[in-house]
Amino acid sequence: MIAATPSPPYYAVIFSNMRTEINDGYAETAEEMARLAEAQEGYLGHESVRDELGITISYWTNLEAIRSWKQQTDHLLAQRMGRDKWYSAYKTRICLVERDYEFSI
Amino acid sequence: MIAATPSPPYYAVIFSNMRTEINDGYAETAEEMARLAEAQEGYLGHESVRDELGITISYWTNLEAIRSWKQQTDHLLAQRMGRDKWYSAYKTRICLVERDYEFSI
Repeated sequence: MIAATPSPPYYAVIFSNMRTEINDGYAETAEEMARLAEAQEGYLGHESVRDELGITISYWTNLEAIRSWKQQTDHLLAQRMGRDKWYSAYKTRICLVERDYEFSI
Repeated sequence: MIAATPSPPYYAVIFSNMRTEINDGYAETAEEMARLAEAQEGYLGHESVRDELGITISYWTNLEAIRSWKQQTDHLLAQRMGRDKWYSAYKTRICLVERDYEFSI
């Protein structure tokens, strides 16, 4: 469940969000967006958790890969009548991962 | 619940983790670490979610602030007999947030 990313540097897209109570089309679109990401060149993995707040982080080799994926998902979201229906608030942060360290049993 | 961070650039520390079933001291220490972070110069906010995977992201003005906070929390964790008891795996990523955008109703 923790993404097995390579040594830095690489990129992270942090998507922090609050959902509305509208579910219409959400699960299918979320699944399709995950599939699109995984098929995209430069995709390195993702981590996703929701409780009241939702956080989804996707990892990428470079900004170009993020840009291509964003263009695809923007089209998808537009087709599905927009993200504003599903989210009461969100914030997306594009980050350069400079360093990482880990532990596992 | 979504951290109200200022305009980039700033830093994010992504802490992705899996818990063991050992709770001994965990909640108190987590709370104290959050308190220490908030009192630290350069702290900008944090976001935290857990379901099976846990993700806690803290936001900081610069690397120096992260370093000071890490030193404090390392001491705290050492005093409390270490994090390895509470986590079966974790990964920490230090990231430069280059760009962000947001939406809210």
